[in-house]
Amino acid sequence: MKYVVLLGDGMADYPTEKLGGKTPLQCAFTPYLDQIAVEGTLGLVDTIPQGMNPGSDVATLSVLGYNPAENYTGRGPLEAASMGINLGPNDVAYRCNLVTIGQKDTVDAFMEDFTAGHISSQEAKEIISDINNALSSDKYQFYPGVGYRHLMIWRNASFLPHTTPPHDITGKKIAEYLPQGDGAADVNDLMKIAAGVLFNHPVNIARERAGEKKANSIWLWGQGKRPQIVPLTQKYELQGGMISAVDLLKGIGSLAGLKVLSVEGATGYIDTNYEGKAKMALEALKFMDFVFLHLEAPDEMGHEGNAEGKIKAIEFFDEKIVGPILNNIGAFGDYRIIVLSDHPTPLDVKTHVSDPSPFAVLSSLKEENRAAGLDFNEENAKKTGILISPGHLLMEKFIQDWKSFVSG
Amino acid sequence: MKYVVLLGDGMADYPTEKLGGKTPLQCAFTPYLDQIAVEGTLGLVDTIPQGMNPGSDVATLSVLGYNPAENYTGRGPLEAASMGINLGPNDVAYRCNLVTIGQKDTVDAFMEDFTAGHISSQEAKEIISDINNALSSDKYQFYPGVGYRHLMIWRNASFLPHTTPPHDITGKKIAEYLPQGDGAADVNDLMKIAAGVLFNHPVNIARERAGEKKANSIWLWGQGKRPQIVPLTQKYELQGGMISAVDLLKGIGSLAGLKVLSVEGATGYIDTNYEGKAKMALEALKFMDFVFLHLEAPDEMGHEGNAEGKIKAIEFFDEKIVGPILNNIGAFGDYRIIVLSDHPTPLDVKTHVSDPSPFAVLSSLKEENRAAGLDFNEENAKKTGILISPGHLLMEKFIQDWKSFVSG
Repeated sequence: MKYVVLLGDGMADYPTEKLGGKTPLQCAFTPYLDQIAVEGTLGLVDTIPQGMNPGSDVATLSVLGYNPAENYTGRGPLEAASMGINLGPNDVAYRCNLVTIGQKDTVDAFMEDFTAGHISSQEAKEIISDINNALSSDKYQFYPGVGYRHLMIWRNASFLPHTTPPHDITGKKIAEYLPQGDGAADVNDLMKIAAGVLFNHPVNIARERAGEKKANSIWLWGQGKRPQIVPLTQKYELQGGMISAVDLLKGIGSLAGLKVLSVEGATGYIDTNYEGKAKMALEALKFMDFVFLHLEAPDEMGHEGNAEGKIKAIEFFDEKIVGPILNNIGAFGDYRIIVLSDHPTPLDVKTHVSDPSPFAVLSSLKEENRAAGLDFNEENAKKTGILISPGHLLMEKFIQDWKSFVSG
Repeated sequence: MKYVVLLGDGMADYPTEKLGGKTPLQCAFTPYLDQIAVEGTLGLVDTIPQGMNPGSDVATLSVLGYNPAENYTGRGPLEAASMGINLGPNDVAYRCNLVTIGQKDTVDAFMEDFTAGHISSQEAKEIISDINNALSSDKYQFYPGVGYRHLMIWRNASFLPHTTPPHDITGKKIAEYLPQGDGAADVNDLMKIAAGVLFNHPVNIARERAGEKKANSIWLWGQGKRPQIVPLTQKYELQGGMISAVDLLKGIGSLAGLKVLSVEGATGYIDTNYEGKAKMALEALKFMDFVFLHLEAPDEMGHEGNAEGKIKAIEFFDEKIVGPILNNIGAFGDYRIIVLSDHPTPLDVKTHVSDPSPFAVLSSLKEENRAAGLDFNEENAKKTGILISPGHLLMEKFIQDWKSFVSG
């Protein structure tokens, strides 16, 4: 049995006036998504546990069958996984932002910009490298990432101080939001010493001359140990791959035991290499039982509030990914294929919300399909009365119990 | 890091007068095997624990890193795995031969032919199907295999009676070799009832008319539970595949968590599809960390005592498998490649022997190679003074500790 997960990130939406009271999924022409819903089993899945932030990290854990309420240990360790940084059982990964602090070194110091003026990866790499030279030891190491987003690993850390995400305190005085609790002094010291390295750093001098914001501080947050999850591959005794342009997805995928399969021209945007992703999935199925294909584009269009773009992204997903895979998967024998959104990114909200998302599963075995005849969209999914909540239960049903779920 | 195992079954040999006192490996032109030995690390590996039969089952367990002395539970469960039959923790798989008993139903009944005159798979399938109809229940099931070799599964068996391999008692009276101990009565009953089914079976009537030996009995032996081995894939957190024409290898491979990769035209003989196997290995490396490629041909030539054929099989292995893989593996990044024989099948003995076999490992990392400059053959392997015994330790070194082993 082959298992294929095709995830259109943030595809789900609310009915919007921009589209005459319809959702992008209702407006888009999606014959293949519809075929899966009509002939298969449609429903809703509740990926965001109550009280948790509807981030891609939480949603992806759910979709892969891990309860975020139990397994989410912070953004740091997931990003570490995505960067191929191995964490020992007592190592703690911190997100390390390059930020701009206003009124720095005064009592009024505030979080002016949590992106340090969207500093480039190249500039940041120089800075993080110098910070690492100044601070790295057996205990601490800094790793450059993308743009303003980097990592600090505290090896064999005894403490997990409380920290605050910098994007939550834009414009606020930082004094109240500095790390607190056991170990906070160490983290604060790192931030202070790093600020020294940044003070007259050539990159900052150049940025100042160019009228750009200086990266005059680092901000450590999102810390956690490696989640203790049992790899999917082990849980279900299968081999599998993850196809995504997004580091976070690659990281969670590799924690789940999936092999990260790189596709040239996968951008994470609407100009991505759809055909290449579908081709890679079909090639992988020759060697693997399980393939997870993630498409970021609909989410990006949602963040932009771009109705036309979101419809287009969904139609590309349908035509260039879902269609080719659906038309060719039969060659590998029996299969189950699931299409879903991980969370809505409504055009009118421009960010993630916690509502359930539609999913549809089509099995090559007739008796594993409800075949209720409803197209793939939010309204129809709700009509079915099927709501999988908490959403992390979906994956186990999908792989192990789909027949009994459908007939139950 | 990619890991590739290229196994030439039974390649190793004794010096033979047929070849002027040399071995086939010494006579064959093998530039690629030699390159691996010269630039890499050559040695001997002792795959057959003392007191165990040098069968392919035992040798393959060793090569894959499992101690046969602890993990070998019989031929039945390994063949069940190769046939895709799932065994629960208390299920016992028996090899079920179709045999010809001479002087049947007399006190002098003896094992005339443990292959029932090399009965064909098609004839056997009819017979096993009828035996299964007569005897199958929740407790017992019969599965047709190849030629005279079939399987019986006893679900939730409380007993493991002692049995005797039929090929060990050719010409001997069977009375002394019938199953013994707790549960023996059940197994004997199955054999008796099956003999009834066979008595006037149309296949036997036709065989008798054609002057062929009748399959007038089944013989149950080689029983065991599924070996409790930790899949390689789990032990080393990698994904891997098995390329072989031989069911037993496929079975052990899948117990080890490897995905069985089928190659069209793979025959298990000297006419096999060498190029197809090499191509499959290279394709698989795109998706997998570990590939095990097994070539049966040299062993078959050894069994035939065919010196020219064995040299040819080794040269094909070198030219069409080792060469193409060695020349293309660099594209996947760092790698370790091992070439080896699982056991000698000497031309003068025509069957397996327990002596150690040569192996050679080449790593893409210079510091992981001894580079002693010796060609790949038995004599040179012995000269190195490297003998890995027990042989199941080789795989762990190969995957986890090659650098320290080489420098140690």
